[in-house]
Amino acid sequence: MARTGRRPGNQDTRMAILAAARAAFAERGYDGASIRQIATSAGVDPALVHHYFGAKDKLFLAAMEAPIDPGELLPKIFEPGLDGVGERLVRGFVGVWDSPAGSAAAALVRSALQHDWSARMLRELLVTQILRRATTQLRLDPAEAPIRAGLVASQMVGLAMTRYLLKLEPIATMPADELVLNVGPTIQRYLEGPLP
Amino acid sequence: MARTGRRPGNQDTRMAILAAARAAFAERGYDGASIRQIATSAGVDPALVHHYFGAKDKLFLAAMEAPIDPGELLPKIFEPGLDGVGERLVRGFVGVWDSPAGSAAAALVRSALQHDWSARMLRELLVTQILRRATTQLRLDPAEAPIRAGLVASQMVGLAMTRYLLKLEPIATMPADELVLNVGPTIQRYLEGPLP
Repeated sequence: MARTGRRPGNQDTRMAILAAARAAFAERGYDGASIRQIATSAGVDPALVHHYFGAKDKLFLAAMEAPIDPGELLPKIFEPGLDGVGERLVRGFVGVWDSPAGSAAAALVRSALQHDWSARMLRELLVTQILRRATTQLRLDPAEAPIRAGLVASQMVGLAMTRYLLKLEPIATMPADELVLNVGPTIQRYLEGPLP
Repeated sequence: MARTGRRPGNQDTRMAILAAARAAFAERGYDGASIRQIATSAGVDPALVHHYFGAKDKLFLAAMEAPIDPGELLPKIFEPGLDGVGERLVRGFVGVWDSPAGSAAAALVRSALQHDWSARMLRELLVTQILRRATTQLRLDPAEAPIRAGLVASQMVGLAMTRYLLKLEPIATMPADELVLNVGPTIQRYLEGPLP
C-alpha cells in the first residue's frame, strides 16, 4: 500500500513512542520516566500515548516486549497470602516459561546479558512489576522485603537459566509438579523464614 | 621478531590444540572427546597435547578459558562431607566470583547464552567438573545425585546471575557472610533433604 504523505501512519507513531519509551526507561528507570516526557521525545501528545498503550506500566511492558503482564498473573499467586505462596509462584512461573511466551522471556534474559541498558530494563521489570507486587500483596515487612524478594529472584532466575537457557538435565525436563515440590519450599523460606 | 619458517612456534601449536579441543568438546561432549582425536585434528602428537596441557580435564578447562580449576577448589568444600556443605559451597562460590576470576566466569555465562555450542560447553563444565565431583566426594545416592546437583545448580547459577550479571540489589552488594546464611540452607536441603 502506498504511504499517504508526510503524516506518519499509526504504526510509525507507535514505533516512535516505543523507541522514546525504551530510551527513557533505560536512562531514568521506571519510576523516573514519565509519559509526558516520553510523549515530548516522540513528538506526540501525551493523550495519544495513553490512547495507544494505557498507563505507564503497560507502556513499559510494551517497550520491553514482555511476553506476559505480571499485573494479571501475580495477584492469583500473591493475594491468597503467604500460605503456599512458594508452590504457587513456582507453578505460575514454570507455566509461563513452558508456554509459547517462554521463548520471548528467554530472549529478554539473553538480551539483558549483552547490554548494560538491557540489564537495567530487566532489573526494573523485576523490581517494579514483580517484586514490588510481592511486597504489597503479601504484606511483607518493608524493611525485609527487598532482601526476601532478591533471594526469591536469585532462585527463580536460576531456575529459568538452568531449565530453559542452559537446558541442564534433569531440571530441563523435570515435570512441573516435581519442580514445584522441590523449589517451592525454597521460595517459601525466602519469603517467610528467619533472616540473619 | 621474524618467523623462522614452516614449523609453527609453540604458541601456534597451543592455539591449534585449543581450537581442536573446543570443536571436539562442543561436538562430542567431555566424555566423548579424546585427546588422541584432538591431537589428530590439530595435526600434532598426543604426547604434545599432554605435555602442554596435562590430562583431559585440564585441557577442557583451558579450552573453555575457565577462570579456576574446580578440581582444586571443590575437595575443600565437598570432602568434609554433607555437614555444613551448603554454607561451604556458597562461601567458596562467592569467593571465586567476588575475586578477579569473577569477570572471566561472567564472560563464560554470557557466552553460553549466545551460542548453543557454548551453552553445551558450560553444561559439560557444570556436569563433569563440578556436579560429578559433588556426587562422588559427598557420596550421594547415584539415583538421586543428578536431581540434587541440578537443583543446586539452579540456585547457584541464579545467584551468579542476580549478583554479578543483573546486579540486582540488595543481592549485588550483600556481604558474603549474609549470603552464606541466606542461601546455604537452600543448598543443604537440595543435597540432603527429602525428594518428592
